[in-house]
Amino acid sequence: MEETFVPFRGVKNDLEGRLLCYKQDWMSGFRSGYRILAPTTYIFFASAIPVISFGEQLERNTNGALTAVQTLASTALCGIVHSIIGGQPLLILGAAEPTVLMYTFMFNFAKDRPDLGQKFFLAWTGWVCVWTALLLFLLAILGACSIINRFTRLAGELFGLLIAMLFMQQAIRGVVEEFGIPKRENPKQIALLPSWRFGNGMFALVLSFGLLLTALRSRKARSWRYGTGWLRGFIADYGVPLMVLVWTAVSYIPVKDVPNGIPRRLFSPNPWSPGAYSNWTVIKDMANVPLLYILGAFIPATMIAVLYYFDHSVASQLAQQKEFNLKKPSSYHYDLLLLGFLVILCGLIGIPPSNGVIPQSPMHTKSLATLKHQLLRNKLVSTARKSICENSSLSQLYGNMQEAYNQMQTPLVYQTPPGLGLRELKESTIQLAVSTGHIDAPVDESVFDVEKEIDDLLPIEVKEQRLSNLLQAMMVGGCIAAMPLLKKIPTSVLWGYFAFMAIESLPGNQFWERILLLFTAPSRRYKVLEEYHATFVETVPFKTITTFTLFQTVYLLMCFGITWIPIAGVLFPLLIMLLVPVRQYILSKFFKVVHLQNLDAAEYEEVPAITCNISLDDQDAHTRNDHTNGGEVLDGIVTRSRGEVRHIYSPKVTSSTPSSQDGIRPVYSPRVPHRACSLHESELRAERSPRFSFKCPDAKKTPSP
Amino acid sequence: MEETFVPFRGVKNDLEGRLLCYKQDWMSGFRSGYRILAPTTYIFFASAIPVISFGEQLERNTNGALTAVQTLASTALCGIVHSIIGGQPLLILGAAEPTVLMYTFMFNFAKDRPDLGQKFFLAWTGWVCVWTALLLFLLAILGACSIINRFTRLAGELFGLLIAMLFMQQAIRGVVEEFGIPKRENPKQIALLPSWRFGNGMFALVLSFGLLLTALRSRKARSWRYGTGWLRGFIADYGVPLMVLVWTAVSYIPVKDVPNGIPRRLFSPNPWSPGAYSNWTVIKDMANVPLLYILGAFIPATMIAVLYYFDHSVASQLAQQKEFNLKKPSSYHYDLLLLGFLVILCGLIGIPPSNGVIPQSPMHTKSLATLKHQLLRNKLVSTARKSICENSSLSQLYGNMQEAYNQMQTPLVYQTPPGLGLRELKESTIQLAVSTGHIDAPVDESVFDVEKEIDDLLPIEVKEQRLSNLLQAMMVGGCIAAMPLLKKIPTSVLWGYFAFMAIESLPGNQFWERILLLFTAPSRRYKVLEEYHATFVETVPFKTITTFTLFQTVYLLMCFGITWIPIAGVLFPLLIMLLVPVRQYILSKFFKVVHLQNLDAAEYEEVPAITCNISLDDQDAHTRNDHTNGGEVLDGIVTRSRGEVRHIYSPKVTSSTPSSQDGIRPVYSPRVPHRACSLHESELRAERSPRFSFKCPDAKKTPSP
Repeated sequence: MEETFVPFRGVKNDLEGRLLCYKQDWMSGFRSGYRILAPTTYIFFASAIPVISFGEQLERNTNGALTAVQTLASTALCGIVHSIIGGQPLLILGAAEPTVLMYTFMFNFAKDRPDLGQKFFLAWTGWVCVWTALLLFLLAILGACSIINRFTRLAGELFGLLIAMLFMQQAIRGVVEEFGIPKRENPKQIALLPSWRFGNGMFALVLSFGLLLTALRSRKARSWRYGTGWLRGFIADYGVPLMVLVWTAVSYIPVKDVPNGIPRRLFSPNPWSPGAYSNWTVIKDMANVPLLYILGAFIPATMIAVLYYFDHSVASQLAQQKEFNLKKPSSYHYDLLLLGFLVILCGLIGIPPSNGVIPQSPMHTKSLATLKHQLLRNKLVSTARKSICENSSLSQLYGNMQEAYNQMQTPLVYQTPPGLGLRELKESTIQLAVSTGHIDAPVDESVFDVEKEIDDLLPIEVKEQRLSNLLQAMMVGGCIAAMPLLKKIPTSVLWGYFAFMAIESLPGNQFWERILLLFTAPSRRYKVLEEYHATFVETVPFKTITTFTLFQTVYLLMCFGITWIPIAGVLFPLLIMLLVPVRQYILSKFFKVVHLQNLDAAEYEEVPAITCNISLDDQDAHTRNDHTNGGEVLDGIVTRSRGEVRHIYSPKVTSSTPSSQDGIRPVYSPRVPHRACSLHESELRAERSPRFSFKCPDAKKTPSP
Repeated sequence: MEETFVPFRGVKNDLEGRLLCYKQDWMSGFRSGYRILAPTTYIFFASAIPVISFGEQLERNTNGALTAVQTLASTALCGIVHSIIGGQPLLILGAAEPTVLMYTFMFNFAKDRPDLGQKFFLAWTGWVCVWTALLLFLLAILGACSIINRFTRLAGELFGLLIAMLFMQQAIRGVVEEFGIPKRENPKQIALLPSWRFGNGMFALVLSFGLLLTALRSRKARSWRYGTGWLRGFIADYGVPLMVLVWTAVSYIPVKDVPNGIPRRLFSPNPWSPGAYSNWTVIKDMANVPLLYILGAFIPATMIAVLYYFDHSVASQLAQQKEFNLKKPSSYHYDLLLLGFLVILCGLIGIPPSNGVIPQSPMHTKSLATLKHQLLRNKLVSTARKSICENSSLSQLYGNMQEAYNQMQTPLVYQTPPGLGLRELKESTIQLAVSTGHIDAPVDESVFDVEKEIDDLLPIEVKEQRLSNLLQAMMVGGCIAAMPLLKKIPTSVLWGYFAFMAIESLPGNQFWERILLLFTAPSRRYKVLEEYHATFVETVPFKTITTFTLFQTVYLLMCFGITWIPIAGVLFPLLIMLLVPVRQYILSKFFKVVHLQNLDAAEYEEVPAITCNISLDDQDAHTRNDHTNGGEVLDGIVTRSRGEVRHIYSPKVTSSTPSSQDGIRPVYSPRVPHRACSLHESELRAERSPRFSFKCPDAKKTPSP
């Protein structure tokens, strides 16, 4: 995305790009069939549960002027509109915590003014929304979003971790409050006697930890050893909603021994109770707001606009990280413009507006990546099985699989070269066939372990479509009608769910992984190499990683501290935006450019040409005389614009550590001997095998001494 | 062990065998230094906590005639005597659940007789002990223990699993009782109001699950990624006692909000409270017991004798499983004889006798295997590092390590050929050196990854000594004095600990692993091959495994059902002993001998000569033309007398499954390419690579077709 501030250019580019794939966005969603329900329900819960909880919070703070009905309505309305006419359909909209804080602040301001009061509170917020929308229009039209390029990993991941901390804080605070007396309840009732409060708190601990632990486990069900594949898949896809159901059921077990109100459950008026609709007609009151307050509404509006501009763009950015290999274009400017319209709409009907939310948006992309993986895998496995049944040779098998793979690709102008992941499959299977001398003989599963091979080789791709976003927004809307059912969920399950969301948002966050790296025993750091995001472990000295991470951690704690300041706390995004100049002008003075590029690549910095031969621990490592030729090297390596260089060759051969002489002869995957062998040949040529060697696609090969 | 019933021969053989290593038993213990404290405290907790809990149970059931002071005293006394003059020092003695049940039964019988009553209850049990001891003498002298050979894995593992079930049952029952009103308490007190009972029960859930989960995690600390090696080792060694401390501390957090008695804590009189010593003088009363009752005492005595004979021998057998590669001889007969003396001793001072306990005894051996592994590993790593510092060549390095290894071996006549595990190390390192052409060049750690290599290659050995047993028994004795401290432990922590012990006793139980196998998805069964006890997966058809396991499960459930019958329940060992003829005469009719040998080898059955070429799923697999010669094959395979054939070659090369194109170039352990390559050569020669091939040491090689 170019950095341009010509009016309307950004919006126009976005619209052009997304219109090209608009039809495919829908087709692709519908072609997924029932499987689209897995990411949909996953995101629906991640979206609805916090929104209900924020609504409850808002109800307490605004004396019932706004409730969970309004936050749900806003989330559903904005979500449906965005999924249909929005730009980036991976982005999830929702009524978020900062909005709740701003509305609380505005209510406290309004309720004591005689000429405003609770009566005109919503009308006044309508004016705030109008001003906010105007500011958002300005920002969108003038291309303010194009500076999103300057938001490096540093800022985005710091923001992600901050949100995780806030969710976790809410979880802990929620559980602690289960031991106390809730504000709006009558403290004389039986359930609030000290003895029952103790029991309620302990029960809350059981329910929240139960939900957290089982939900975390269920997400990994696909790799369980037990149960049929279908059951494991079902639990992995629907485990989290299922666990909410299970723990809600558990909360009913001690029903006959305990008084009403234990455990505490979600509280919200039913949408059909009297007065729940009073806010929809708020537009009639807007003309009655005194002029001074209409103008004064500009002040909170600037704060909300800054907040939304930042939140919306970063949520969108985190949902479109480079790791996901997205094939459709981004749409920052147009989405901000649309957000402006949504804010006006919400303001006029007296509900708090929604904006792009973290961690739900990246969670959405991740769950769609899982879906795409499942779809690709099923297709390729069935193709491979079919070929084997038809007694195809390995080369025919590969051909069939390549064809099936290409069929699954998004037919777009934005497409990257296809079959990157499959090329290795071909290479290895064919070389194996040559070595065992039956390239033209029919394959069978003893030679070609279908599921394993395909699992190892599939690239990360995302099912980019609009259906899951639309459906989840509609389901959130359905929650308003299902309120009597939702009210059966214990609040403690909700706190467990908050903790679950905080933890789910951590994997893939490089900042988090670097923090863990600091606590990793030096002898085990090599394990990081086996995981994602780990290039920097090879290329940046550990001391530099430590300094950089410590700086980031201190900054994170500062941001976290600011959120505790009553009203200024809402503006923590400003502190995060400050990271852009800090990164560009200050950090570059303290760190070498090449290290910064590896830790936190920025598009405005050029990668130095020769950055090779850098090895961990200053060992004198040498680039390896690989047996692959230049073309293969280029195939095997993906250069990231963020400065990460990733090797597509996955580490197939690892020295496993089973307990020595009790080891059983392993089932050798037929590819392994070959693969290891070709490396062996190359190691024979090299005089010494370096522990960590690092190769750049654009560097000249240095001969080994 | 020969099956002989010549009087005294068994006892004599045992004594001769153990006397030979008696001095070494002590020397070896003291040479371990402070590290011996790790298994000692581990077993001390596993021993003391159930004994205290059984004591509490006994106090309720005998109206205070026997308390935890007596069960602790018995465990300490018998433990100290057994560790000093007993035969097998791996065997742990303790007052066990069956003893508690028998004493409860006897108390209920005695309390209602006017001429016996609670006054003469202990004196009468003194007579029961005398009769029991006489029966045990008879059994020991006549060599009854030699039929222990007929107790195959089938019976031993079924018994182990039954004990695990009983422990788990106690844990669940304990937690459920935390919600109820305890028998001996005044139900009017505040802590027993329904509201506080609910809170107490929920708190108990938190504490017991907290202990269970953290204790299970802490045992695996050595493989954690975080923290220094020292910390990880400390947590793995002392994590379980540490967690008992931590959760006891946690139980004091809500102290100011809750009434006294929440959470419930261990209850036991202090040993210095009045009346606690009345039982020590019970011998004076024994003459006053009516003659009829003295004779009648023979009836419970037979039951106890059968129970002890079985329990003691099986506990000893499970502590000496073949997997542990023990080097010192067993001592079943002599230990049973000694148990007879201990029973008389306990009877005369009015405390319930102790016998060999499960799962503590096998836990003891396992923890000593961990200790030995640590000691060997440290020695070899430091030797290797020293050699590397001295610029030794690979062959010198190997020589030094072999020497260090031999120094650590037990210098005994019973020793197996040394250096079995290290031979592979030599082979691989030297071949690597040849291939990379610097056999005489100095080694460095980039070629020889010291810690990894040694971890992979060390065989399972056990630190067989008497010190840990003596120390843990003395510490149990110390508990009597430390009773005021022990009473701070909440009972719920205890229930969590029971569940922990049940779960800890499962790994290594082949019966349990077969049950899991039934629930394993067919596509993931290969994972079992990578673990222990898995030979049968390769050699026995899955249907046979299923039938055998189902039979065993039904039998287990029958035994478990019997324990619920009030008094006959104590005799569940009889049902397990019935397994011996069932296995020998009935099972052999339903299963092929070769399959039975693989699932449950018995020494009385001969292995058929040609049992090779059996492969899973009736695939036509062929024995592999290995490149190793006959001698190496014999080195590489350990034939188990239980019919398990284990390949010493550990599975070094496994096809790891990282997420495809995001994989980072792995750190190749230098041995891997070589190792895989030699296999590759052999695969080139074989026309087809079989998935599962199985080799017998005594079978003729069948040429590949």
